[in-house]
Amino acid sequence: MKHHSALLTDLYELTMIQGYLHYDYNPGVVFDMFFRRQPFNGGFTIFAGLDDLLKGLKGLSFSKDDLEYLAGLKIFSRSFLDYLADFRFKGDIYSVDEGLPVFPDEPLIRVHASLIEAQLIESYLLNVINFQTLIATKTARIYLASGKGTILEFGLRRAQGLDGAISASRAAFIGGAAATSNTLAGRMFGIPVKGTMAHSWVMSFESELEAFEKYAGVYPDECILLIDTYDTLESGLVNAIKVGRRLLKEGHHNFGIRLDSGDLEYLSKKVRAEMDRAGLTGAKISVSNELDENIIHQLLTDGAPIDYWGVGTNLVTAKGDSALTGVYKLKAREKDGRFQPTIKVSNNPEKITNPGIKQVYRFYNGQGYPIADLMTLDDEEIISGRSYRFYHPRYLYRSMLVSGCSRIEPLLSLKMKGGEISADLPDLKTIQRRCKENLDRIDSSYKRLINPHIYKVSISQKLRDLKLGMIEEYSNRR
Amino acid sequence: MKHHSALLTDLYELTMIQGYLHYDYNPGVVFDMFFRRQPFNGGFTIFAGLDDLLKGLKGLSFSKDDLEYLAGLKIFSRSFLDYLADFRFKGDIYSVDEGLPVFPDEPLIRVHASLIEAQLIESYLLNVINFQTLIATKTARIYLASGKGTILEFGLRRAQGLDGAISASRAAFIGGAAATSNTLAGRMFGIPVKGTMAHSWVMSFESELEAFEKYAGVYPDECILLIDTYDTLESGLVNAIKVGRRLLKEGHHNFGIRLDSGDLEYLSKKVRAEMDRAGLTGAKISVSNELDENIIHQLLTDGAPIDYWGVGTNLVTAKGDSALTGVYKLKAREKDGRFQPTIKVSNNPEKITNPGIKQVYRFYNGQGYPIADLMTLDDEEIISGRSYRFYHPRYLYRSMLVSGCSRIEPLLSLKMKGGEISADLPDLKTIQRRCKENLDRIDSSYKRLINPHIYKVSISQKLRDLKLGMIEEYSNRR
Repeated sequence: MKHHSALLTDLYELTMIQGYLHYDYNPGVVFDMFFRRQPFNGGFTIFAGLDDLLKGLKGLSFSKDDLEYLAGLKIFSRSFLDYLADFRFKGDIYSVDEGLPVFPDEPLIRVHASLIEAQLIESYLLNVINFQTLIATKTARIYLASGKGTILEFGLRRAQGLDGAISASRAAFIGGAAATSNTLAGRMFGIPVKGTMAHSWVMSFESELEAFEKYAGVYPDECILLIDTYDTLESGLVNAIKVGRRLLKEGHHNFGIRLDSGDLEYLSKKVRAEMDRAGLTGAKISVSNELDENIIHQLLTDGAPIDYWGVGTNLVTAKGDSALTGVYKLKAREKDGRFQPTIKVSNNPEKITNPGIKQVYRFYNGQGYPIADLMTLDDEEIISGRSYRFYHPRYLYRSMLVSGCSRIEPLLSLKMKGGEISADLPDLKTIQRRCKENLDRIDSSYKRLINPHIYKVSISQKLRDLKLGMIEEYSNRR
Repeated sequence: MKHHSALLTDLYELTMIQGYLHYDYNPGVVFDMFFRRQPFNGGFTIFAGLDDLLKGLKGLSFSKDDLEYLAGLKIFSRSFLDYLADFRFKGDIYSVDEGLPVFPDEPLIRVHASLIEAQLIESYLLNVINFQTLIATKTARIYLASGKGTILEFGLRRAQGLDGAISASRAAFIGGAAATSNTLAGRMFGIPVKGTMAHSWVMSFESELEAFEKYAGVYPDECILLIDTYDTLESGLVNAIKVGRRLLKEGHHNFGIRLDSGDLEYLSKKVRAEMDRAGLTGAKISVSNELDENIIHQLLTDGAPIDYWGVGTNLVTAKGDSALTGVYKLKAREKDGRFQPTIKVSNNPEKITNPGIKQVYRFYNGQGYPIADLMTLDDEEIISGRSYRFYHPRYLYRSMLVSGCSRIEPLLSLKMKGGEISADLPDLKTIQRRCKENLDRIDSSYKRLINPHIYKVSISQKLRDLKLGMIEEYSNRR
């Protein structure tokens, strides 16, 4: 499943690299990966994809076929291709932990490497982190909207490509999904897998009742019947209740039905009432059909008695925001043995970058809730209990004093050293638990589906002074 | 790049299959793949993904690891796992040709196989065809909106997973993209690759002018300078013109600039005027930055002098419709040696399927333009020049007589026989040409970006009679 071909890169990375080599110019650099805007107009984002990224970077190289292909393009010199033949990523990666809530503008990943190495991994890094972070975030929204209910990810058939399905299943689990229908993702990542029957099962037999009875015959202990192939209430429900009662009499308790069309509030209430009347009070109701966080929230608010939420297309393709706007920007460059901060001074203030090698600190209040994040230069000392002035990263006249926080945690830590994974990477269940625990500790105002409170990500005085100084210097130089 | 693990399937396919085997029930069946709604509210869809699908099906099998994993789930019997160990897809596939415009409700792929085989490939088939068809369609819209201009696909970093990028590059080329930035996709599919520099190149040198000069030093014959790192008009353009004039004097003519931010109409007009004034009348203008078909159409209408369109996120993630709603439905089932049509009679009329083994015929007018498609039963004889009554697939009282068409073509043809690819699969350039030629022959009313004319897909009298008869029979039986 891993594409270890270093050719999975935008061509301009290669043309630039050949240029750097041509001038024998390959200084040490620091790049930051960050995003500028919360997806789904939400109040938080869940960081995901690090494990795949690190494992992919470790194996990144050009095969003989890759190099032959590049030679055939007639834009690369033989000496450049020889260089690529030996290419391995030997840099250091600092990163936020997977599953943590993160916010716009703060560095999620910091890459320390030679210019050439850092440049070559850009497209791959962005692809993996942008997508998994997007899907973990979408799933967390869905999970919260369901009242921390049971979310089943059913996206394989509508996902954007095979890996769009597989890595979506991974990210969905991080964001709170309980299981996936994607069997290969189950094998690869140890995610629980779920699934019972499609309409085709029902249509493959002479009658709906026969189809239900046959299914119960094979799976008496996990029997979820799909009741909307013909007429949901008049036929599907009636037949399901017959089968459910028989199973119950025989001592099988794990019975339920699934609704995949129609008005899910109306139908689930009718189905619940009829099943209860028939003594099937323990029978579960699963629903699917183009669900998303808004529909789920509405159904729940209106009291629809739904036990399991099957969410496919809108989860794995991140309906509403099909890409995270993550970018990867040069923040420092070695010159005469020292790292100099760099800045991109765009005409658009939103696109002016925060220069230098940075750390991010999360400040918690006495109840253990995060209150704000502070971006600092990496060599600043941030100590619990002290007061710090938080400056708005763009507006000049906004700042606040934060004092007395007994818990302040740095978010970036070393994960890869000299191209080798140097941190213990937790398993997926641990990452999911981290995500859930951290979501629990975020104030509910940041978790609203619509118009959430904006979590503050500020810059330290030292970073602000550096940034303003560099903008001024740039303006004077022009 | 191909995932040949048959485990890439929804778990319910496996639970159903075990059920069929348990009852020793594995009749011959026919499934159709079709979609119900045009993506992007458009007037056409471009069929894509067949090549990957067929090659994937050919190699589909369960590895030892796959089977061990399934054994560990404790829901599958040993005899079932032994069955899977020998599983190969041995069915027949009929399909539309890649690159052809297609329309809702008509079968794009028809699978003839045993129930078990047909069921097992469902999720894989839908994933591949849904996504590539979606992206080919999106790209065709973008290509047409640009006045059949030069579309460069730059989506790798924002695509939905690695394969979301790679197979998007393939589908984008079918839909009319001229090139991709994704070097691996270039190697895999022979797509032209393009790319020059990022902002990081400019920021890696002491000054913008130095960065431009250095780039021109290495690539004098393909020098596209990115001019918006600092100040587009005051700095980037001025420096680019210096370099461009020098290159021109030295006899290098392939020069241009790229704009990646700001108002692209305003900036492209300014840049064009300044470059022309400087004698750089042959210099090209490339643009990028969250482009889609609507933005491109507007820029073109307003006379923005743009030569190349770099389109990334919104193309590869299909902004506006992140999934094609393709489905895969049982249409016939063998009983006593004969195929019996099957139907799904949903409460929702849109979801009532067209039963039986079907062919689709495209009827052309005297100018070679398609006027409508007719779904028939496969054994109906459709002959050029004769008159046929076209019935609306859902509304009872709508029909039209189509007569005198000298050209009538069946859309479905045999591509795989007994699990072996039996048709010559054209190369990607041929598929792209087919797509472009067929788009040229579609009346412009179907190609409007907004509120296009609806192309008619009708059913034959025989198919209509079968469908109505089956619905009636079903209603009586209840």
